[in-house]
Formats: sequence, structure tokens, C-alpha cells
Amino acid sequence: MTEGKLFTEEDALLLEEIILNRRDIRGNHFIDKQLSDKSLDRLMKAAVSAPSVGFSQPWEFVVIKDNAIKQQIKESFEIAHLKETTFFKDEKQQAYVQLKMEGILESPVNIAVFYKPSPEPVLGQTNLKETGIYSVVCAIQNMWLTARALNIGMCWVSILNEENVKKILNAPAENQLIAYLCVGYVDKFLAQPELEALKWEKRKENVIFFNQYK
Amino acid sequence: MTEGKLFTEEDALLLEEIILNRRDIRGNHFIDKQLSDKSLDRLMKAAVSAPSVGFSQPWEFVVIKDNAIKQQIKESFEIAHLKETTFFKDEKQQAYVQLKMEGILESPVNIAVFYKPSPEPVLGQTNLKETGIYSVVCAIQNMWLTARALNIGMCWVSILNEENVKKILNAPAENQLIAYLCVGYVDKFLAQPELEALKWEKRKENVIFFNQYK
Repeated sequence: MTEGKLFTEEDALLLEEIILNRRDIRGNHFIDKQLSDKSLDRLMKAAVSAPSVGFSQPWEFVVIKDNAIKQQIKESFEIAHLKETTFFKDEKQQAYVQLKMEGILESPVNIAVFYKPSPEPVLGQTNLKETGIYSVVCAIQNMWLTARALNIGMCWVSILNEENVKKILNAPAENQLIAYLCVGYVDKFLAQPELEALKWEKRKENVIFFNQYK
Repeated sequence: MTEGKLFTEEDALLLEEIILNRRDIRGNHFIDKQLSDKSLDRLMKAAVSAPSVGFSQPWEFVVIKDNAIKQQIKESFEIAHLKETTFFKDEKQQAYVQLKMEGILESPVNIAVFYKPSPEPVLGQTNLKETGIYSVVCAIQNMWLTARALNIGMCWVSILNEENVKKILNAPAENQLIAYLCVGYVDKFLAQPELEALKWEKRKENVIFFNQYK
């Protein structure tokens, strides 16, 4: 087994820039430009190179370009979105309804990401069962950063009903929907997260503790 | 709002290298070298720059250097490890017990990562409740890649009992343990994931589907 590469300070600074510049891109910023198969392959290579508990690689991806399927997912979003609207009141609700929250039809490629449980015990997963799901999320973050480095936008749509999406995609019963991603080129990447710029939520402080909680 | 940076092909290739070279580093590879506060700060900056559902930033981190606390966590690991051993039989069990699965005492810094649920409804989290947890995992993957770019090793210990760890760290009842990380310098980064090299699991194929499952 040969040894892995050593990175330079310049490399680490570049990764920091990619991390800081990554954004959630919604349908008001996608442009009408196709994603090449090569770019899609690079996203998928990043995904399957993620860490996974016990090297279980418990992920499956459905790459969706078909408009009829996207339209069904969009209808599922509309129902879930209307439901979520009721959770917010007054000015917050007014702000909520003005936000664009997905890019299902505007993006050339959608990717549904599933967790597929292993039928056998998985090393590292018998005590904390959810770690298999966490592996899938690591794959998604790899995709998100890779997209950003390729100047491709991505959003994670979580305003959906899982059973509805699984039915539309004919997903196996045991699969769990982790994310529904919209991927494509964009007019611009905002300098700040939109919900921060709009003062929907403040940036948090005091999230780091030392040795233990007091 | 100004626009975000455009990255080059060279930048994207470098990120790919970081992703492909990232490894889970266990106690048999950590070396006796302290982690500077500056390096730790860079890991934490990467963490809190992760995407989060509704910009909720639902993460808390406990940075542990105290040996007495590490020792208690190690004891918790030993119990969970013994329990997991029984899930594997015959040759698989023999292989299992020879693997080093954590680096709690060997690494200078441990970081417990928690999900802290919001008392208020979170934008994007009312339909799929688990998305708050997924935000925390995105933060962990940002840390992992940043560590690798700094030539710092990290392992994710999931062979632990959550309630036990929460008690040791005096964590608030509502917090959920997502990961327990060991961080430090290493003698080397392996070229392949150890569990792949040892043929514990094969690399999976056929995890990508088009438009829908057949």
C-alpha cells in the first residue's frame, strides 16, 4: 500500500475558499444550460468517494432528466410547501412565501439520493444505527463542494413527502430518501447565504464547548 | 450582494484529489504531535460554514483534550466494541478483532459533535424532520476534508453508546450525538481505505439509476 499525497498550505486555502463559497441555489438562479455527462460523472465520483461506516457504501442515486417525472416531484413539493407555510405566522409567513425554495423544473438534472440499508450487520453501525444514513450525507456534501468547484449550482430540496417521492421514482420499499438535489449552471453565486442576507436567521455563535458542557 | 468566486479546472482537480485522498485514521496511525489552536480553528470554521436547513446551524461541538474524559469515552467504546464483536462470526469475527477502530487516547484532540434541535419550526425541516441532523453531518464532512488538506488525520468513532457519551460530557438532554471524532497528525495516509484493502467489503457498482427504478 503506497502512501497518500501531502497537500500544501495553498491547497488548504483553496479548499477553504470552495467551502466558504458553496451556496444553496434555487430555481431563480439556474440558467438554461445543459450539464455535460462528464460533469455529472465527476459529481458521482465525488459522491462514491465519501467515507462510509464499515465501507458499506449504503447509497443509491437516481439521476432524473425526464420532465414528466420532474413535474410529478414538483407537484409533491407544492403540497409539502403549502403545508409548511402554515408553520409560520404574520411577517415570517409573508417572508416565507416570497422565497424560492427549489429548482426542480429550472435545473437540467435532479438527483434523488437514497440510503439503502444493508441486510447484514455493518461494522461500526450496530451501536449507532443512523451512521449508515450519515455516510450518505457525507456523499452529498462531497457532491455539493465538487459542484461548486466546477461552478455548478446545487440545491437540496427537503420540502417533500418521502413516500410520495419514493412512489414517483418506484423506489424499493427499504430505501430511505435522504435528499432531492437540483443541479445546473447558475447566473451567479451569492456572496452570503440568502437566508442570512435576508435576516431570516442570524449566524450562530457559542457553538463550541471545551472538554464538557458545564 | 456581490457575486461569488469562479473556480478553475485546476481548482476542481485539486478538490477531487483531496476527496480521493481522505481516509479514516485510527489510533495505530496517529503520532505524538500536538494540534495547534490555529489548525483547530480552521477545522471549526469549515464546520460552521456547512450548509444547514433553513440556515438553522443546528450543531454543537465539544473539543476534548482532557485525558480523564478521554479515558471514560474509551471505556464506553470498549463496552460497545465487545457488543459489536458478537455480530460477526468465524473468520469475519477473527478479522474484526484485529482491526483498530478508534484513536481516542492516541489523538491529541477528540471532538464530539451534537445535533441541537430548534425549539421553533425550521424552514425546510417540517416535512422531513431528519434534515437538521443531515446539516450536522455536512459540517463533519467539511471538517474531514479540511483536516485532509492540512495533512491532519481524522476518524469517526461510531462504536459508542450515545447515552453513555452524553452523560460523560454532561450534554443537554435534547442534544443528539452525531459523531465522535479523533483528530491529529499521522504517520501516513493509506492509499486505499483499509477495509477495502483488507477485502472486508468490496467497492460497490451499479448504485446509479436513471429517471426511476425499473
